[in-house]
Amino acid sequence: MHCIVSEAEAILDKEFPVLDKGFVRLVDYMGGDARVVQSARVSYGAGTKTHREDDNLIEYLMRNRHTSPFEQVALIFHVKLPIFVARQWIRHRTARVNEISGRYSVMKDDCYLPSIEDIAFQSANNKQGRGEPLEETSAEQVRSVMERGQKDAYSAYQALIGKGVARELARVNLPLSLYTEWYWQIDLHNLFHFLELRLDTHAQKEIRLYAEVLFNITKKVAPASCAAFERHVLKSIVFSADEAVEIKNRLAKREGVLHGKDLDRFEEKIATL
Amino acid sequence: MHCIVSEAEAILDKEFPVLDKGFVRLVDYMGGDARVVQSARVSYGAGTKTHREDDNLIEYLMRNRHTSPFEQVALIFHVKLPIFVARQWIRHRTARVNEISGRYSVMKDDCYLPSIEDIAFQSANNKQGRGEPLEETSAEQVRSVMERGQKDAYSAYQALIGKGVARELARVNLPLSLYTEWYWQIDLHNLFHFLELRLDTHAQKEIRLYAEVLFNITKKVAPASCAAFERHVLKSIVFSADEAVEIKNRLAKREGVLHGKDLDRFEEKIATL
Amino acid sequence: MHCIVSEAEAILDKEFPVLDKGFVRLVDYMGGDARVVQSARVSYGAGTKTHREDDNLIEYLMRNRHTSPFEQVALIFHVKLPIFVARQWIRHRTARVNEISGRYSVMKDDCYLPSIEDIAFQSANNKQGRGEPLEETSAEQVRSVMERGQKDAYSAYQALIGKGVARELARVNLPLSLYTEWYWQIDLHNLFHFLELRLDTHAQKEIRLYAEVLFNITKKVAPASCAAFERHVLKSIVFSADEAVEIKNRLAKREGVLHGKDLDRFEEKIATL
Amino acid sequence: MHCIVSEAEAILDKEFPVLDKGFVRLVDYMGGDARVVQSARVSYGAGTKTHREDDNLIEYLMRNRHTSPFEQVALIFHVKLPIFVARQWIRHRTARVNEISGRYSVMKDDCYLPSIEDIAFQSANNKQGRGEPLEETSAEQVRSVMERGQKDAYSAYQALIGKGVARELARVNLPLSLYTEWYWQIDLHNLFHFLELRLDTHAQKEIRLYAEVLFNITKKVAPASCAAFERHVLKSIVFSADEAVEIKNRLAKREGVLHGKDLDRFEEKIATL
Repeated sequence: MHCIVSEAEAILDKEFPVLDKGFVRLVDYMGGDARVVQSARVSYGAGTKTHREDDNLIEYLMRNRHTSPFEQVALIFHVKLPIFVARQWIRHRTARVNEISGRYSVMKDDCYLPSIEDIAFQSANNKQGRGEPLEETSAEQVRSVMERGQKDAYSAYQALIGKGVARELARVNLPLSLYTEWYWQIDLHNLFHFLELRLDTHAQKEIRLYAEVLFNITKKVAPASCAAFERHVLKSIVFSADEAVEIKNRLAKREGVLHGKDLDRFEEKIATL
Repeated sequence: MHCIVSEAEAILDKEFPVLDKGFVRLVDYMGGDARVVQSARVSYGAGTKTHREDDNLIEYLMRNRHTSPFEQVALIFHVKLPIFVARQWIRHRTARVNEISGRYSVMKDDCYLPSIEDIAFQSANNKQGRGEPLEETSAEQVRSVMERGQKDAYSAYQALIGKGVARELARVNLPLSLYTEWYWQIDLHNLFHFLELRLDTHAQKEIRLYAEVLFNITKKVAPASCAAFERHVLKSIVFSADEAVEIKNRLAKREGVLHGKDLDRFEEKIATL
Repeated sequence: MHCIVSEAEAILDKEFPVLDKGFVRLVDYMGGDARVVQSARVSYGAGTKTHREDDNLIEYLMRNRHTSPFEQVALIFHVKLPIFVARQWIRHRTARVNEISGRYSVMKDDCYLPSIEDIAFQSANNKQGRGEPLEETSAEQVRSVMERGQKDAYSAYQALIGKGVARELARVNLPLSLYTEWYWQIDLHNLFHFLELRLDTHAQKEIRLYAEVLFNITKKVAPASCAAFERHVLKSIVFSADEAVEIKNRLAKREGVLHGKDLDRFEEKIATL
Repeated sequence: MHCIVSEAEAILDKEFPVLDKGFVRLVDYMGGDARVVQSARVSYGAGTKTHREDDNLIEYLMRNRHTSPFEQVALIFHVKLPIFVARQWIRHRTARVNEISGRYSVMKDDCYLPSIEDIAFQSANNKQGRGEPLEETSAEQVRSVMERGQKDAYSAYQALIGKGVARELARVNLPLSLYTEWYWQIDLHNLFHFLELRLDTHAQKEIRLYAEVLFNITKKVAPASCAAFERHVLKSIVFSADEAVEIKNRLAKREGVLHGKDLDRFEEKIATL
């Protein structure tokens, strides 16, 4: 039986904007919290049927990393996103993708231009991230340099297309900021894994914004599963073997075991609790 | 938008019997032929939109092995099947499975007992298959030996369960003919791959019967895709490089190039066209 | 360049016994800790090359769940294992398997018979597990019932094979305790995931024993990666969002936030630190 | 036991140039033809051991699409390739990838500039491909427009990096022709599938050139498997159900069954045999 979730029905096919020109749109979904419960009960048989309510069962599954029932729910998203974001996104291999092809179609003149407040310096302590924002005038300069670069690249592309040069060749100098579009189908378990990595503060801000919209949409489809994921995975905290000993000792008012960088990292973790 | 296919709606949740006690039931589906077309058009953009009708597009995709649009359609089946069939089935890794667990639940007294006409001798020329059927009296003897074995194994299991022995241990002597159940979710492309292998005459008859029922159900969900699959994959014929030369030469009334076993295999192939 | 690890060379092709008749044998491996480091440096470029020593880099990768460098190491194991263990094992879909086929070959007379001390009652509080062991006399009775069942099933199989019945049919009543064999190839990241689940106390004891042997072998191939896995994953501890608040409050000597079952589970976790 | 193939040893770590600045390099391999045979014999047991020589067994496996023994062989390639090629390549999800990250490292000033003879018009009859080459003067103009675009984009990138703008942001306007590098690990079966699609005349020429080099390297590692792949897959020809009937009728000098476009496609296929 189809599993119809009225909150999800209400947003089906609606475009949720992301970045300056992108969007995420829920094209279809199969299943929801009820499907998770239903397929878990296949595994565990009649034995547990009467003993747990649905939400408790979902909590239990998530807490104990019984992931397979979450795989029975599937979602399809239509996404418009810059190519450099698409390149990070596609590293998740457990999804099914249909992307617009620059060999078949003339690409549209849509490039991602960061907003002034997103233009920032290289982070001093994070090799892969952004630090302080540039002051406004500098940021505006950077932005207009970027805009110019995008216009020039697209004009050159158009000129080549106009000459009849093959699309697959004309497009090779288009920038990574160019928007592409795809259908992306994924099951709920693997979507959670995607979200865990891409909602993380170490993910590049641009893909993180997509992850946030994906998560908000997914909450409409499977709210109890999302709540359990948030509690037991997303906002959970992992302590290494020796950090665990440190906690035990501290709670028992005994001497700690960590030193140096290990201790620093532990204090940092505790501070964020 | 949901893609509702009325022929599929009509059979949703209906149990189709397979073997003596097994069944296949379509639990849910997402998409159909319309979804294949819709996602193909994302890839190929506006360019092809007006030029092909849907069925032609599906034919084109299948003929040219453009497989990704078929991945956007997903189906969930509830299947009851003997464990030795489940062991062949699970080799297909691209599906999502929730199986009843003999650690959680007491297994039911359901074993597969082949019908008289399915009890056959080892094939003389096919190392993995069945040949001539046994004569009826012998077959009946075999069948009653098998039935006795199943009863004995299940009684021993029940006795152990009765004593309070752990389920996970009591079940280890249950036979491979015991029925299990699972939810099995797969996308249409990978389902076609499963069907190609399991509808083949070299597949064991028992799994082939499941494949036939799966295929019949799938035809309700995506009839044009199934027709294209049948024409271009299932009933297609592959000739090796040198067999291709043989055909060319014969059509041009020139000398053939094949000899010995290669020639025998070719003649056999031609005979079955 | 091949990455030869002398500790691994020393055990290559050696059979390590598991259970009464099973074994694990390392057939081949590609890469080791050095390959993890080498492929991480492709990702992070020259930037980090001089700043970290190899073991620190491996620690860093594991701590931050940068899993892809661990995927570049691959191992092949030859395993002899009971079918009911094989059925749990095969649920891990990210490996490559070649298993002996009961359609091609006559299966050998090897069944798993648990040792006296492994024969236990159903656990009272763990729906999927074993609790107290049976007293010795009872356990011996259970064991001889099991042995008898295995002998009878194998005799019936032999009789059918002797009559010329097709192997694929004759084998369907063989018990789940029958040993099978396979080649199993997996990358180091996915092997760690397998080990995390199968070394867990909730895994059935029989597969856990295999996981222990696999882990010991893997330590020879990639010792630093295994140490980091042990510290940051295997022996790590995960606290949910509200458990994290509980810890923060306790460390700051403030009132806790957990109640009821949540509190019980938390205390249990703390007790095991 | 390691499976050392002397032809492969001879080219290990050697860079094979592709395009103007790219390369493919075999970093490591595990197994070869001998491993395919060895793991097939696990599956088929003692039964077939004496009856077939190794090459015949490999032929048999490929002809009958018994793909799992080919999965036991793994190869790692280090590849330098333009991003637009990387985007096609990564669609194959069954490989393990570590790619240089533009968030960690400053990207090098290496862009793909097609050679004069590769600059061609959009194909008239192939929506996704290249047709006639431009005349030399036009091609040179196109080439210098492209070169200019690449220089400008890279200069702008350098200027932003010089200002201290975050690398992850500065790089978003770099062109798709920019070279990236990765480690790519794949098993032999999935590599064959990659090669089947990417050696096809419909694949974009640039990725086809990589596929050719990959195939040449792979022939060193597993020559008999590659020969069987070439004969039974790469150079095989597939006829649809009705094309098969057409062939049967023609060979028997009976009336054909195909009409219109179906007939045209058939004649085209026959002409290329």
